[in-house]
Amino acid sequence: MRQFLVIGHDAPTTPDFALDDLAGAAGRLDLLCRCVNSAVFLSHGIREDVRVHLVLADEFTVRFEGGELRHLHPDERNIAARVRGALEERDGAIGHMPADVSPGVELYRMGVAETLETAASEGTVVQLHEDGDPLVDAEPPADPIFVLSDHHDFSNAEADLLAEAAERRVRVGPELLHADHAITVAHNWLDTDGYTSY
Amino acid sequence: MRQFLVIGHDAPTTPDFALDDLAGAAGRLDLLCRCVNSAVFLSHGIREDVRVHLVLADEFTVRFEGGELRHLHPDERNIAARVRGALEERDGAIGHMPADVSPGVELYRMGVAETLETAASEGTVVQLHEDGDPLVDAEPPADPIFVLSDHHDFSNAEADLLAEAAERRVRVGPELLHADHAITVAHNWLDTDGYTSY
Repeated sequence: MRQFLVIGHDAPTTPDFALDDLAGAAGRLDLLCRCVNSAVFLSHGIREDVRVHLVLADEFTVRFEGGELRHLHPDERNIAARVRGALEERDGAIGHMPADVSPGVELYRMGVAETLETAASEGTVVQLHEDGDPLVDAEPPADPIFVLSDHHDFSNAEADLLAEAAERRVRVGPELLHADHAITVAHNWLDTDGYTSY
Repeated sequence: MRQFLVIGHDAPTTPDFALDDLAGAAGRLDLLCRCVNSAVFLSHGIREDVRVHLVLADEFTVRFEGGELRHLHPDERNIAARVRGALEERDGAIGHMPADVSPGVELYRMGVAETLETAASEGTVVQLHEDGDPLVDAEPPADPIFVLSDHHDFSNAEADLLAEAAERRVRVGPELLHADHAITVAHNWLDTDGYTSY
């Protein structure tokens, strides 16, 4: 399984945001939605073996399970509506028990540390880092977990957590990419690895 | 220069569409907007040496010039507003004379064939094709022009035009990707080519 954990520092934790202003009042939820898009969508289908964790302001995590999603569309507004629907169930998320929202979408009352720990128990944390190995030279692990940040850098505390959890460091390229673009490049790395004539 | 030509078969040609329903009534303009995003945005800046041509229903083309864009945000809604603003100037686009819309954005009264011909005069047309060479084995040309389609396949006429114009065929991977994701992978190919330790 491929997992992507995306930290939304300014993301909403209540459902009272408008779908018309994702990039403003909703704390750059547009970017988080594009991360879900990049993680789960193929041209004519869904990547079944993908899990995305959107961490909202270190308080809640919305989990998208590729293989179980139904009727999700790739536009920001549709994905944001799922996040909003998840937050409408926030009172149902207690401890490690998620609130069930819609097929393939769950809401957890978990911040960065707990979500990272949960994800890391099922794979190898790969840090995208400017000092990491170039992707082209690196061998991907079987069950990678990529951790990304929104438009803000990782906080010091997040960077420390990540350095502790990460078993690998790779670099996607000489340019610094948005999180959603980095997810696409990571998928392509995994898709093409080992193929000499795909 | 890197150029991306994206064909929007169902895209609007008049400005009377709502920004609240890009994926529906606006003919999958959401996807075209994400293509602009993937083509021009870096994490903290713009790719200066990029030109994007969005061909709208074979009638108009909105051209985005990376190095001249001002105040463009990466969310679908903001980019769609630029497309709508361009279409508000549609009466000013006459023959090959564009209507000036905003810095870095122009509207041409040109369909697929004319736009492809114009773009191709400044570089090498690269076709993304399932029978092409795997990217990892291919050497990118200096001034590539990538031609992509929205959620529909190329029409027969478009495929013929493209086969005629294309000097190269490459394949991004074993999975079929959305156009915006393919653009991200193409950029990464160009970004990392020739770097042994980027």
